[in-house]
Amino acid sequence: MKDWLRFSVAFWHTFRGSGADPFGAPTKNWPWEDGTNSLAMALRRMKANFEFLTKLGVEMWCFHDRDIAPDGKTLMESNANLDAVVALAKQLQEETGIHTLWGTVQLFMHPRYMHGAATSPDARVYAYAAAQVKKAMEVTHELGGENFVFWGGREGYQTLLNTDLKKELDHMAKFLQAAVNWKKTIGFNGTLLIEPKPQEPTKHQYDWDAATTMGFLQRYGLAGEFKLNIECNHATLSGHSCHHELEMSRIYGMLGNIDANTGDAQTGWDTDQFLTDIGEATLVMLTVIKNGGLAPGGFNFDAKLRRESVDVEDLFIGHISGMDTLARGLRNAAKLLQDGKLSELVAKRYETLNSKLGALIEEEEVSFEELEKKAHEWGEPPLSSGKQELAEMIFQSYL
Amino acid sequence: MKDWLRFSVAFWHTFRGSGADPFGAPTKNWPWEDGTNSLAMALRRMKANFEFLTKLGVEMWCFHDRDIAPDGKTLMESNANLDAVVALAKQLQEETGIHTLWGTVQLFMHPRYMHGAATSPDARVYAYAAAQVKKAMEVTHELGGENFVFWGGREGYQTLLNTDLKKELDHMAKFLQAAVNWKKTIGFNGTLLIEPKPQEPTKHQYDWDAATTMGFLQRYGLAGEFKLNIECNHATLSGHSCHHELEMSRIYGMLGNIDANTGDAQTGWDTDQFLTDIGEATLVMLTVIKNGGLAPGGFNFDAKLRRESVDVEDLFIGHISGMDTLARGLRNAAKLLQDGKLSELVAKRYETLNSKLGALIEEEEVSFEELEKKAHEWGEPPLSSGKQELAEMIFQSYL
Amino acid sequence: MKDWLRFSVAFWHTFRGSGADPFGAPTKNWPWEDGTNSLAMALRRMKANFEFLTKLGVEMWCFHDRDIAPDGKTLMESNANLDAVVALAKQLQEETGIHTLWGTVQLFMHPRYMHGAATSPDARVYAYAAAQVKKAMEVTHELGGENFVFWGGREGYQTLLNTDLKKELDHMAKFLQAAVNWKKTIGFNGTLLIEPKPQEPTKHQYDWDAATTMGFLQRYGLAGEFKLNIECNHATLSGHSCHHELEMSRIYGMLGNIDANTGDAQTGWDTDQFLTDIGEATLVMLTVIKNGGLAPGGFNFDAKLRRESVDVEDLFIGHISGMDTLARGLRNAAKLLQDGKLSELVAKRYETLNSKLGALIEEEEVSFEELEKKAHEWGEPPLSSGKQELAEMIFQSYL
Amino acid sequence: MKDWLRFSVAFWHTFRGSGADPFGAPTKNWPWEDGTNSLAMALRRMKANFEFLTKLGVEMWCFHDRDIAPDGKTLMESNANLDAVVALAKQLQEETGIHTLWGTVQLFMHPRYMHGAATSPDARVYAYAAAQVKKAMEVTHELGGENFVFWGGREGYQTLLNTDLKKELDHMAKFLQAAVNWKKTIGFNGTLLIEPKPQEPTKHQYDWDAATTMGFLQRYGLAGEFKLNIECNHATLSGHSCHHELEMSRIYGMLGNIDANTGDAQTGWDTDQFLTDIGEATLVMLTVIKNGGLAPGGFNFDAKLRRESVDVEDLFIGHISGMDTLARGLRNAAKLLQDGKLSELVAKRYETLNSKLGALIEEEEVSFEELEKKAHEWGEPPLSSGKQELAEMIFQSYL
Repeated sequence: MKDWLRFSVAFWHTFRGSGADPFGAPTKNWPWEDGTNSLAMALRRMKANFEFLTKLGVEMWCFHDRDIAPDGKTLMESNANLDAVVALAKQLQEETGIHTLWGTVQLFMHPRYMHGAATSPDARVYAYAAAQVKKAMEVTHELGGENFVFWGGREGYQTLLNTDLKKELDHMAKFLQAAVNWKKTIGFNGTLLIEPKPQEPTKHQYDWDAATTMGFLQRYGLAGEFKLNIECNHATLSGHSCHHELEMSRIYGMLGNIDANTGDAQTGWDTDQFLTDIGEATLVMLTVIKNGGLAPGGFNFDAKLRRESVDVEDLFIGHISGMDTLARGLRNAAKLLQDGKLSELVAKRYETLNSKLGALIEEEEVSFEELEKKAHEWGEPPLSSGKQELAEMIFQSYL
Repeated sequence: MKDWLRFSVAFWHTFRGSGADPFGAPTKNWPWEDGTNSLAMALRRMKANFEFLTKLGVEMWCFHDRDIAPDGKTLMESNANLDAVVALAKQLQEETGIHTLWGTVQLFMHPRYMHGAATSPDARVYAYAAAQVKKAMEVTHELGGENFVFWGGREGYQTLLNTDLKKELDHMAKFLQAAVNWKKTIGFNGTLLIEPKPQEPTKHQYDWDAATTMGFLQRYGLAGEFKLNIECNHATLSGHSCHHELEMSRIYGMLGNIDANTGDAQTGWDTDQFLTDIGEATLVMLTVIKNGGLAPGGFNFDAKLRRESVDVEDLFIGHISGMDTLARGLRNAAKLLQDGKLSELVAKRYETLNSKLGALIEEEEVSFEELEKKAHEWGEPPLSSGKQELAEMIFQSYL
Repeated sequence: MKDWLRFSVAFWHTFRGSGADPFGAPTKNWPWEDGTNSLAMALRRMKANFEFLTKLGVEMWCFHDRDIAPDGKTLMESNANLDAVVALAKQLQEETGIHTLWGTVQLFMHPRYMHGAATSPDARVYAYAAAQVKKAMEVTHELGGENFVFWGGREGYQTLLNTDLKKELDHMAKFLQAAVNWKKTIGFNGTLLIEPKPQEPTKHQYDWDAATTMGFLQRYGLAGEFKLNIECNHATLSGHSCHHELEMSRIYGMLGNIDANTGDAQTGWDTDQFLTDIGEATLVMLTVIKNGGLAPGGFNFDAKLRRESVDVEDLFIGHISGMDTLARGLRNAAKLLQDGKLSELVAKRYETLNSKLGALIEEEEVSFEELEKKAHEWGEPPLSSGKQELAEMIFQSYL
Repeated sequence: MKDWLRFSVAFWHTFRGSGADPFGAPTKNWPWEDGTNSLAMALRRMKANFEFLTKLGVEMWCFHDRDIAPDGKTLMESNANLDAVVALAKQLQEETGIHTLWGTVQLFMHPRYMHGAATSPDARVYAYAAAQVKKAMEVTHELGGENFVFWGGREGYQTLLNTDLKKELDHMAKFLQAAVNWKKTIGFNGTLLIEPKPQEPTKHQYDWDAATTMGFLQRYGLAGEFKLNIECNHATLSGHSCHHELEMSRIYGMLGNIDANTGDAQTGWDTDQFLTDIGEATLVMLTVIKNGGLAPGGFNFDAKLRRESVDVEDLFIGHISGMDTLARGLRNAAKLLQDGKLSELVAKRYETLNSKLGALIEEEEVSFEELEKKAHEWGEPPLSSGKQELAEMIFQSYL
């Protein structure tokens, strides 16, 4: 079961989530925090991270550069802070056997990135972002990270009235190409992942959803170099089900990682809750099994405690609940696939396509003229039930 | 002004819209209708169409094959019906000077297409659809249509549980490739257009939005053969502004036609109203001017009277209102672009990219290493205001 | 279990649902249908209804006046048609032991109601609607119906520009008062129910959601005379969870019936699917148990087959799936309540309110002055975790 | 024009808005700020407020208690801070002639209110909130505020699983009743206002929209004591147009104030932008004119600069843009009402109700029996067009 459920804790939510929201101040008072954003605190916090991972029994973690180590006054100082924390993390990894699922880069919190990073209208910001990604890739490599993720929270626009859309998209592609080049330069063999999200904080984010992101990669010749990190909450914000985004990625060989969380079906922003819906979890695992697993990707718990959950115990409850749900989902999905009832229903639905009739279409170049002849010959096609109610009944009987 | 505002009446809404909705029976009792779906009625209706166009002063029209001529008992009979009506339409075109902006094919009303046409699980339906498109392309060509549109209302899914997503998408591509081939075979020089819509009637339509559709075309090697027909109401249903969809298409040279309508900002289905928002119309025309116009595409009024609007007069009011709004939008947009205040604001925003600093980035292959050096050298970038409030103020001062 | 799960089949969906949608023609070809809307067909269809109910083992049904009997040329003729069908239904009820959960009135399909019924701007339509409701209440009474429902599908507006909002709301209240009076006149002892829905077919429906409807009833002095019929799909269309709408009704003693269906979480219109989500069903049943059941209301399957489900067998599958899901939900909810873990969590959360501290507040008239004194005395309140993750974990462990 | 456009600056956005968002740090560096939250800074900031108001030419302002003066370690200290700042504000008011449109209370930022204030499960929080409101009402009275507003940002729930819905709603009513009592005790003659918002920060806020809030007030006997403060952005988040919320309040005499802002039509959270849509502004002013103005309420610019707008100049541009738009809206609306074309269209639509036919209905107690007689007598009502397209055309011709 472990190979299928490669869990990871997200440092940013679990150790840097303060409970603040747009209308409220921080609520968390973790006992290991001293109220500062110092390097010393960053080091103590990293120890807490490994203690938590150990107690929880989770063997991987994920991080943003700036959530593990504080911004310095200069890039150089920031890099030095990062090096210090990474050195400790590396040591703790060795001691515990815990390793890094992926690293990523925080190009959205600092005011300099308010107009975007790769898509900033300011050349200096573009360069600064490049320097930051370069370093973040290096430390991820240093920590043995299996992947490196790009979430372009500010790569988008707030209004088209002040935006040169084409230039920004071109720059985003250039930037990602440079990241690909750098990966090769340093010999990092991990997977590069892009994490789609439709909006928030920007009105429109360029990596809107899986289809948009794959189309972008293809247009700019980057399709072979990236996979997708699908986040369930982002899926629903873009008007899709999580299962849809997973399947769209899977069928084109682009599913690389899952940010395992869920949103609230009635709210229009990212709530990043732990996934506890057993039906949803079963759908997620159906895709994962069909994908042959996620490795070298995994399930990163990109989920945060509710603002009102202020007990250390809650950190454990949230993660355990998420793990249990996905484990139950895996069992359900495996049984569903083994029993084959749903697959049979689908096979039956497409049976003419797998018969002599369908061969014509599956062939490369059948023309409208030939098809027209067949249409006259075959006459009016009979109506066949789509059997959606039956499919849903079968599905639910496995929950 | 006429060259910029190539208006067209949509036969389906204006002459086949009954006023029915999911909870209500038809309400329209046009004086030229006899209550039948006969060929004779189809011919009389076509005359009414040209009378309406003439009185309205609109010089183009658009149609679906099955809304101008009734389904027959067989494909052959349907084709014969279509030929009869097309012959009359052609004659009326010659008499009036009115011509065809585009034709399209109705692959969604008939039960045979309930599971899709090109993406049906039934090979016989695929063939039937091919035959129907073949004929629709021929009659569009016969009528001198400048474009041919694909709106795949049932090309999508209702539930992933019974769907082979990959097979369906592959088939859609094959089908479109066959259409391209057929276009060449018959010497049709019009533009092929795809009209994105996210959902309705299906839960998920494969041509979700402009970005998705362009990505699909690129993946399957069809990008050079199609442009997009952007519908404003479909844009907002997909979570985007109409302006966004137009700009996404324009910047990649893919904007081919506009289905000029609007939705209701508070409803989650296609209301297809006449566009009367002057701000929206000005944004639309900004894109059109930047695109150098839409020809050989145009503005098709894919808009219908409200169910409760049952006077013949209302047909005129709706179209006149739509034309006036777009004409006002054109004047506003032209003035806005001529005066240049907004363009200056944008240019200023991107000025470092057009300076020596930016040259580095605009060059092909600057590496992260070089960018990092620059980042150290340049230091912390200053914050510049995005000036969104100013941009909005400038924009509104032109309405 | 039967007392808790008072199931009913909705005649309109199951026997009049054609599979048509805004972009598609009817798809169903039930063997008992002859393609007419005649009285003879209505009688045969009613027999099919009782055959279906018997085979399914469901003991109640619901109907609209106009879906069981055809419109006549005059109101008198329509009433005669209705009488004929009702006579048969009554006889079949006696033969089978099946009875009527509720009747309702179709004030939305016919063009005369296009601007509303009670809220029509035309006095003649108001009168016509009153006559139709009068008759529908009589036949419901005749059939021993336990409730009578109002769903005001056209009681709302399409645009405020042409609407006298106050007059329409006042008329709606007057109309409902007249219905209350008529109920008493004829000695009908069933419950009158209003079914909230936010929109569709209108842009805005006056019975938007439970809170709006209860507020309306109270404003117009009707609160004691009506309860609510909560439909899950309508709940989600209004931006609420189904559980929210049920609880809002329950806590004020207004929960009368449940239209047991579900929507698609990603579509903005009423899909009226059979409820198969086991988590949702458990939440629904939590409310039902807390409400002491629903009688004399019940669970009406206001759910329709997908357009693509065209087998008679699908009618059975849909209903069985819905019944199974609710039965599983009931078992889960009962166990959850019996075990008491969730109730304990809630009790603990509110414990200060049930202690001496809270007594002050629970008393009628504690003033701000007294509370201020306490605030100074008590000092800064300690933070207590809301335990949402734990609550969700407990909940899911019962699914 | 001034009497109709009673503008006010919102202290919280204009002077405390930092540019932070859930994914980003503060961006504003106003020259008058010293980076502290000290009392000295609060006093300097208040001077900046009056300087801004004077330069802008706006004569009113609004505030939350905690945004003008810092939280102290105890309630007593907080109150002392507030007194110090209020004394200065009062003096500045006298010097400038500027006055207070309304005060309000911040019961959502501090962690103690994370579960709500009046609806907190903790009795101590309820008392603390009462003490805070008591004081906020006193200082608003001291400053001559014309109104006092309640926005219950945390009065709602995050999950029903841990919530006693009935108890919380009862407490909210009790709390508001105590506020009414306190108002009388201190002789404050201003209007008490409730500001509906559907959600954010909570999943569900009890004051969901105008209808819900009015229903709540009526249920708990508070209807005569409160009016509503309608915010346009909150309106659209609740699924309504701003015009709808304004009209719903107006027709029942409950419209007290407008929080003049707008949201982004494609985002699911509160963006609080300055209103610049001229069509929307005209609709808003239609209601305001029909309401005979807003006094003693006004237009509070509850709008914030975009995070990326970091120039002091932008503060002016935003407000000026908002004022210009509403002034244009007023002119349009006044002309539209004077010319009377739209009113005529509406009057014609309801004409049967104002004739002899309608008298029957407008009378108090016409029974279904009498109406049925009329229905038979009058026969099938003729269909009349709703003239929505004409209404929209008339409306747009005034923009």
